[in-house]
Formats: sequence, C-alpha cells, structure tokens
Amino acid sequence: MSDTQHNIPNELKATAKAHANIAVAKYWGKRNSDLNLPFFDSVSFNVEDLTTETTAVWNEDDFRDALSINGWQVPEHTLGRLTRILNTIRSLTGITKRCILSSKNNFPLSTGLASSASGYAAAAAAAAAAAGLELSESELSSLARLGSGSAARSIPAGWTRWHAGNLEDGSDSHAVSIAPPDHWPLHVFVIQVSEGPKSISSSEAMQQCQSSPYWPTYLQQASQAADFAQNAILQRDFAALTEAMHTNALQLHALAMTCNPPICFFAPKSIEILQHILRASRGIQVCCTLDAGANVVVLCEETAYPFVKNDIIAFGLPFVQSRIGGGVTVQAKPPHLSSE
Amino acid sequence: MSDTQHNIPNELKATAKAHANIAVAKYWGKRNSDLNLPFFDSVSFNVEDLTTETTAVWNEDDFRDALSINGWQVPEHTLGRLTRILNTIRSLTGITKRCILSSKNNFPLSTGLASSASGYAAAAAAAAAAAGLELSESELSSLARLGSGSAARSIPAGWTRWHAGNLEDGSDSHAVSIAPPDHWPLHVFVIQVSEGPKSISSSEAMQQCQSSPYWPTYLQQASQAADFAQNAILQRDFAALTEAMHTNALQLHALAMTCNPPICFFAPKSIEILQHILRASRGIQVCCTLDAGANVVVLCEETAYPFVKNDIIAFGLPFVQSRIGGGVTVQAKPPHLSSE
Repeated sequence: MSDTQHNIPNELKATAKAHANIAVAKYWGKRNSDLNLPFFDSVSFNVEDLTTETTAVWNEDDFRDALSINGWQVPEHTLGRLTRILNTIRSLTGITKRCILSSKNNFPLSTGLASSASGYAAAAAAAAAAAGLELSESELSSLARLGSGSAARSIPAGWTRWHAGNLEDGSDSHAVSIAPPDHWPLHVFVIQVSEGPKSISSSEAMQQCQSSPYWPTYLQQASQAADFAQNAILQRDFAALTEAMHTNALQLHALAMTCNPPICFFAPKSIEILQHILRASRGIQVCCTLDAGANVVVLCEETAYPFVKNDIIAFGLPFVQSRIGGGVTVQAKPPHLSSE
Repeated sequence: MSDTQHNIPNELKATAKAHANIAVAKYWGKRNSDLNLPFFDSVSFNVEDLTTETTAVWNEDDFRDALSINGWQVPEHTLGRLTRILNTIRSLTGITKRCILSSKNNFPLSTGLASSASGYAAAAAAAAAAAGLELSESELSSLARLGSGSAARSIPAGWTRWHAGNLEDGSDSHAVSIAPPDHWPLHVFVIQVSEGPKSISSSEAMQQCQSSPYWPTYLQQASQAADFAQNAILQRDFAALTEAMHTNALQLHALAMTCNPPICFFAPKSIEILQHILRASRGIQVCCTLDAGANVVVLCEETAYPFVKNDIIAFGLPFVQSRIGGGVTVQAKPPHLSSE
C-alpha cells in the first residue's frame, strides 16, 4: 500500500526554477486585491543568483494542497494565494487532485528578502507543467500573479514589464520581457540590511499607503515610471536608469512615511548605504533601490565595478553579487510537453 | 587715543539672550526670500538650555559691522543677513555707526544644531536695544526674521506661533506666544546625531524642495499644520501633539527625498531613533521631530520620562536635556529704556 501511494505517475510531477526580481519602476497598490491587479505598469529585472526551485506533484491520495519551503511545512491558513493558483489550474484542466509542492530557496540570505516573486513564479510554473497545462508565457505570468503581483515579472527573462492591463478578469495583466539578460550586463548586488521578517506585509502596506496625502500625486507619478524606466533600459542610459530608480524608490518610501500611521521601511544601515550611493552616483555609474523593506539593491556598470565592490564590502553586511537573470525554467516537463 | 576708542557710551551697548527653538509645525519655503516671508504659519517651542548670548556695541570708530561667535570672527561676506537687521535699525533710528556684535552659544553640542534662530534673535534684540530702539515684541520678532525666518519664533516665550502675514513688506509676519513655558512642562531632549555642518543650507534646501512632485500637496498640508499643532498644545493633548509632530516632520523629509536631486537629511542614527520613538509612542507619551537635518528632538510627558531618559542614554549619542524655554531677554538695557 505504501508502494502504491508513492508510485506517482511521471506526468503529474514537474520542477520549475524562477528568479527573484527587483523593480526599477515598482508595483505598489492594487486596483483589485483578489486578482492582484495593479494600478499601473511596473518594470524589473530578474536576479540570476536568487532562485526558488519548486517541485509540484498532483496526488489524489492527499486531502489537501500542501507546501513546504526549505523542508518546513507551511501552515495551511497561509496557503490562501497558492490555492488560487491551484484552483485555477484545476478549473482549466478538470483535474481534481491535490497538489503537493516542495520549494527550495537558494537565497544565501535569510528570508527578509522578497522570495514571494520567485516562489509563486516557480510554484505556478511547476504546478501548471505537472498538470499538463500548456500555457503561453503571458498566461503563466498571469497565473503567477494570482499568488503575488510581483511574481508575474519573474516569469519572462531579463528586464521585464508587467502590463497592468484593463480587463476586469485580469487576463491582460501579465509581464513580458523588454530585453534579455545580456542586453545590458550590469552588476547586481543585493545587500541584506534586515534579517527578520518585515513588520508589515506588502499588501497591508500598499493599502495603508493610500492614506497618505501624497497618494494621488504618487499614483500619477508612478504611472509614468514604467515608460521612463523602459526607455532607460532599452537605450542602456545609465544616468536615466539612476534617475528612474532613485526617483521611484524615494517616492515610494516618502509615500510610506507620510501615511497614517507612518511606515518607515528604512533601517539605519539602509540610510548609510543610500546616502553613500546617492553621493557616489554623481561621479560613477552606480545606483540603487530599496523595495518596501530595509534591504538595498545596487546596480553598476563595469567601469564602476571595482569601486562599488570595494564599497559594498566595507558596509560589513551580507550580500549577494549577481547579474541580470533569466526567466522561469521548467526542468522536468511531463512527457507530452517534451516535444516543445 | 586708545582710551577714547574704548570709551563707548553706555547707552550704545546692550546684551541679549535668546533660546533655540524647535518647530512642531515647521517653516519651510519662502514666498519672499529677501524678507524671509514664509508661505504658511509655523509653531515651535523654545529650548530652555540652548541659548545664544550676544552683546552689541554701536561704534563710530569702526568702518564695518562685525560679528564674532564664540570668539571667532565671522567672515564679512557671510554677514549678509545680519546686515539687513542692522540696516533696518539704522534706518529706524538714524544712527550711522557700525555695529560690533560678539555672540556666545552655550550649546554643549557642536554647531550642527540650528543656532541661527537663537543667534539672530539675540543679535536683533541686542543691536536694537543698544541703539535705543524701543520695539514691541512683534516688531522685534519681525526684525529677527530678517536674519533667519525661524529667529522670529525665538523672540516670544514658551510655545510660539509665527504668523506668515499677508503684507508685502512683512510687517505683519512675526511670532507671538501661544502659551508660556509652564503651560505644559514637557521634557525636551535634543540628541546630536550629526556633528558636522549641514551639507546643504536650509534656504537652498527649501528652494530645491519645490521641485518635488509632492510640493503642492505639502504646501496645502503644511498650511493646516499650525492650527492643528496649536490646538494640541493649548489642550495639552499629547496624542494630538504626537500626530502633529510626526506627520509634519515626516511630510517634510518625504518632500526632501523626492525633490530633484533628492535630499536625504537622515543619518543612520536618525532612523534608529525615529523607529524607536515611533514604536514607543504607541505605548507611552513620547514623540519626536527632526528638523532639516539629522538631529532628533524628543518630547515626553512626566510619566514617560524614566523610560525615555533610559532609552536616550542607550542611543549612545551626546544629548541636551531641557525644558520649554522663555523668550528673548535683554540683560543690559541702555539707561533711557530702564524705566520700562
């Protein structure tokens, strides 16, 4: 009997690997929170060396969907957004089985870092492939979006743009690649400023930020940010990229600081690094961003690399050095998809 | 001859002492930069233990106005704003002599701390008194304002409000006391985060901030801040004071962060203290503000005092512990004013 239980058909199992992404023009605020539909487009790049690898198995012997991360079983009540992805796959395929996912982050950093993008992207890709569901990249991006908005951007490769879309069902809200990883081979440093989990979730913080008197202006400014960032990237214009990243990040943090009650995502070390990069960016080709948290991500051109690397070591914090990364890959496709 | 030079008539010499002030609803931005006329009202309190004492002597044997601070002669080209005060006194009195001022800050902190308010308030009061000019408190506040806007608020005692005024000549732009120092005997801690001079002057920063997309909203919000702060003070409502101070300070720093190029006034330690006080303020009666710089000023009620003092010591930074302070005092009035 135990043999039967573990004799899972090959075609209902798949493994996918996705990269974390860092936004140049950030996603912030939802026009529909059930479907993770944003107010405006966002632009990001994948980080080659921050990955989540997830294996999904559709299994009729289990009563419930389940997820483990790095060997730890995730409490069922926190599966909510994953369940939306799995229910969508069930309704598209007619499958009635439960899905068991085991996920592994390679992040050498602790979990403070945004793992939800790579996590949901890998989970969506693995679960869809295991179910034999053939999806276009856009469809897969839309599916991953149901887990976490930013996961939509971890599906395509390199520099990606998530189109907010207009449709109420979100079917046109997905990310596309605007340039491959080798289009602009910048150095990426992800600096771990904060080890702990965030004190407020991104979803809650997004909601709370709408209480800021600056919200209407933020919304109007951020809605233009994706175009500006995309142009900077396509033209490999580092000065424009710097302006895009700094402006967009600081407008978001300013928004958070002025909501009620105020949210200050900065840690002391975030400010040390931010101040340093703001100064350095006047002389060399380096820039940075902070997501809704304390960690800082630094980008630089080859010419600035020796100085930047030296400075980053001097900050005395754990960091990952990387490059612009690829899109999601499915490593063990079921047989009927292997002809692709 | 040397005897003659030093035989200065008593009635042309006076000494005044003024306190630094900390804004609850900040002055930021000038509708007229020659006259230091603000866009909106501001509210502050004087700090009892941060003072400038200035002696002014009108002397016909000197060719030029001169100022020394703590024994150091100030370069003539930086006297610009003091000269406006002295020229105003000359035109009001018909005096043609030069004014020699020697000023002493008692600040146990280095000069990073805003000494311009107490400095110009003491200089204006001393120079006017030495010239035998009898001015009302409002007129003296207006005169000090010509040196530095915030100096207007160091003339009246305790909690003060600077009325922006409407007139083009600025004659109705002066501060008045809204409550005496003993109205609400809060503890004041001025924590020195940054030792060095500021990297950008307040006047320049005010100008640059108008490039932020948040400027119109800031202007509209900050214009309501003085009323809100004054009500909190008059009602001794600490929760409202906390909201007033935090909101007003964070809106200003958010504005600065989003101007072009961005200005980040925070030092790493500012964030450590700010985060700590934001958290603590949910449980005890403590709040803080940061002016356009890295230093943090903490206010607390008697009940919170032991905890706050303990926390502030733990920050490991130099600090001044004080109370709400009085207005400017003229310690050696010329004889013809002594009958007042």
